[in-house]
Amino acid sequence: MGLIEGVQITPVKIIENPSGNIMHALKQHESSFAGFGEAYFSTVQCDSVKGWKKHREMVLNIVVPVGCIQFVLFDGRTGSKSYMQMQELQLSPGNYQRLTVPPGVWMAFKGRSKGLNMLLNIGSIPHDPAEADNLPLKNDLINYQPFLI
Amino acid sequence: MGLIEGVQITPVKIIENPSGNIMHALKQHESSFAGFGEAYFSTVQCDSVKGWKKHREMVLNIVVPVGCIQFVLFDGRTGSKSYMQMQELQLSPGNYQRLTVPPGVWMAFKGRSKGLNMLLNIGSIPHDPAEADNLPLKNDLINYQPFLI
Repeated sequence: MGLIEGVQITPVKIIENPSGNIMHALKQHESSFAGFGEAYFSTVQCDSVKGWKKHREMVLNIVVPVGCIQFVLFDGRTGSKSYMQMQELQLSPGNYQRLTVPPGVWMAFKGRSKGLNMLLNIGSIPHDPAEADNLPLKNDLINYQPFLI
Repeated sequence: MGLIEGVQITPVKIIENPSGNIMHALKQHESSFAGFGEAYFSTVQCDSVKGWKKHREMVLNIVVPVGCIQFVLFDGRTGSKSYMQMQELQLSPGNYQRLTVPPGVWMAFKGRSKGLNMLLNIGSIPHDPAEADNLPLKNDLINYQPFLI
């Protein structure tokens, strides 16, 4: 499991408050910000997997404010130094970091806690099915056993 | 409780999926989008109140993907048709709408469910304490009894 070129993992602040915490997500001036196209939540049941999906244009900026989600990334960019490499990480409020995924990188994610598992993605362009590719979980390109069990 | 000038309440889609739902928040081309300055979560304990706060520049775009939050707005803009009027609403995944609050409108909000109550705000400018005014819950300008009980 290497580090995929262009993937960024950035610590994000949680400001504690007795009435309820503030959890940062993304600011305009941060280096991983790549434009605002759309913000949406995706939830994933415990042990369910969503993916594989690859965007051709969208940069993803993801935080997990609720639950725990395991992400696996696979570099499908032929010109990249990390071509064919994989990277795995688990995000939650307890490991509150932002995952920035450049175009051309395949991603799948799995719910890891029994309650609600929820991510926020701030995509650099609005949702457009024409700029995304999908592969079934079991395929000939990406062999990642933990997701198939 | 009237409708405050410039406040928008926009239904937002939830796309149901057995692996986990997708919940829209905000798109670039929607009329209530006013620029991307910063996205952050604010959580509020059951029966706790955050507010009053008024922004001088920031437009707020708020959704509540988890729990239930009661919002009260008060129009403090002397030139507004709804000057001194109040507006109240309760948002949750079951009443999944986006609340757009223009500058100059005071807001307070209260957690209404016993679990996690969480809002996402997509602010039109980054957080800047110099452009926000605060008032204690009990004050001479805004008299809203339910928040004081």
